[in-house]
Amino acid sequence: MNISLAQAEKIIAAAQQKSAAIGTKMNIAVVDAGANLVAFARMDGAWLGSLDISIKKAKTARFFDMNTGVIGELSQPGGSLYNIEHSNSGLITFPGGIPIKNAAGEIIGAIGVSGSSVENDHTVAEAGVLAL
Amino acid sequence: MNISLAQAEKIIAAAQQKSAAIGTKMNIAVVDAGANLVAFARMDGAWLGSLDISIKKAKTARFFDMNTGVIGELSQPGGSLYNIEHSNSGLITFPGGIPIKNAAGEIIGAIGVSGSSVENDHTVAEAGVLAL
Amino acid sequence: MNISLAQAEKIIAAAQQKSAAIGTKMNIAVVDAGANLVAFARMDGAWLGSLDISIKKAKTARFFDMNTGVIGELSQPGGSLYNIEHSNSGLITFPGGIPIKNAAGEIIGAIGVSGSSVENDHTVAEAGVLAL
Amino acid sequence: MNISLAQAEKIIAAAQQKSAAIGTKMNIAVVDAGANLVAFARMDGAWLGSLDISIKKAKTARFFDMNTGVIGELSQPGGSLYNIEHSNSGLITFPGGIPIKNAAGEIIGAIGVSGSSVENDHTVAEAGVLAL
Repeated sequence: MNISLAQAEKIIAAAQQKSAAIGTKMNIAVVDAGANLVAFARMDGAWLGSLDISIKKAKTARFFDMNTGVIGELSQPGGSLYNIEHSNSGLITFPGGIPIKNAAGEIIGAIGVSGSSVENDHTVAEAGVLAL
Repeated sequence: MNISLAQAEKIIAAAQQKSAAIGTKMNIAVVDAGANLVAFARMDGAWLGSLDISIKKAKTARFFDMNTGVIGELSQPGGSLYNIEHSNSGLITFPGGIPIKNAAGEIIGAIGVSGSSVENDHTVAEAGVLAL
Repeated sequence: MNISLAQAEKIIAAAQQKSAAIGTKMNIAVVDAGANLVAFARMDGAWLGSLDISIKKAKTARFFDMNTGVIGELSQPGGSLYNIEHSNSGLITFPGGIPIKNAAGEIIGAIGVSGSSVENDHTVAEAGVLAL
Repeated sequence: MNISLAQAEKIIAAAQQKSAAIGTKMNIAVVDAGANLVAFARMDGAWLGSLDISIKKAKTARFFDMNTGVIGELSQPGGSLYNIEHSNSGLITFPGGIPIKNAAGEIIGAIGVSGSSVENDHTVAEAGVLAL
């Protein structure tokens, strides 16, 4: 199973709404089960550098089928996945990337959000995921 | 002047509609005046390899403020811009990329479409531009 | 709004002057609002490796609209943006990059300086910004 | 012997003047004997995609100590240097790049110009070289 464009657009619309509601400007990316971009939106005035970060967060979440922040806890100095960020042309391992599941619980893609604090990034990503 | 996300989403929606109308499945990218991605959509079943091509077409059209196909005519063997594609981390110089102008005629971004014949790609890109 | 070449050259001249005044040899880069290079100068005898660093500092400052050193405080091990440097083809997050604003307070570009201690790099970057 | 920043800035100023005189908007890059950037200027409104091309032309001219257009004649299909553009992270082999020599005839760097027809690019590059 793979996410559809209609689903990705619904997710991005919900994420945008949440972002506006909490007064932030986000880059929002959705990748499919193959970790390839399906849909993307950069809100007006959002950080330019967050464009790449949002896409990398979405890819990272799908690469390992877990929230990006979980990987970041393991990639610290001394951690078991120290500097895993060097793989896959660059991972982003702080919060803001979340896998997307279908009703059957299968992972069909992932969302990545960047543009504010990592707490806000995660909150907006979660709002996107919940829209499905 | 820079394109807004609302404008980019309107353009992508129009391009999707045109793509469906002519029975194609497209990757559609819109970049801003700085050649950075603003919005993107990959239609269900569209070629995966066209993801990168659509973004590169949009960037190429903004990099030189002209339709991508025009550059491709000059970059042929023996042409004045032979192998220009090696610049800017890779250009795509066949049709499907078109600059986007505002009412005052200023270039505010560009669209890139890939997923079918280059004629169809250009037709869909044009439909996107006309939506503004 | 975007920085002009005349503004960028004025900024680089002031930065060079400051650099000479404090006995350093700097690489100085100015990017526009789209994070693309507008002007650059490498002073005679300046570190070759600082060429890329100065450009990355300028881009980083514009990517996130803040001084590069601020990001570096958050990207430390255990910090909320740990290893953010892996994004955007490489960020530089120690001091020496500063956003450039116009009279209206809008960010129109950024400067990046590299070639000495990060304190000196920041001092020279600041002198450049103040020239506007 | 290596080009100095003062020499590079003189060359860029002369190239800018020539560019304005013939009604073009150019990206102008000067590299040193090590093929590393010394100075750069993007004139207001110049093509964004020519930024990278101007730097690649300057590097290419120094890499092989000849005008870029000469290499382009040899890199055509069937030519002895076919597709040499794939080397060195991308060469640009059409006109606009010229080696810079000192009074003793030693090559001390190179200039690369991009932003108009290749004839105009070469003319402006030549004006830069002659300023020395």
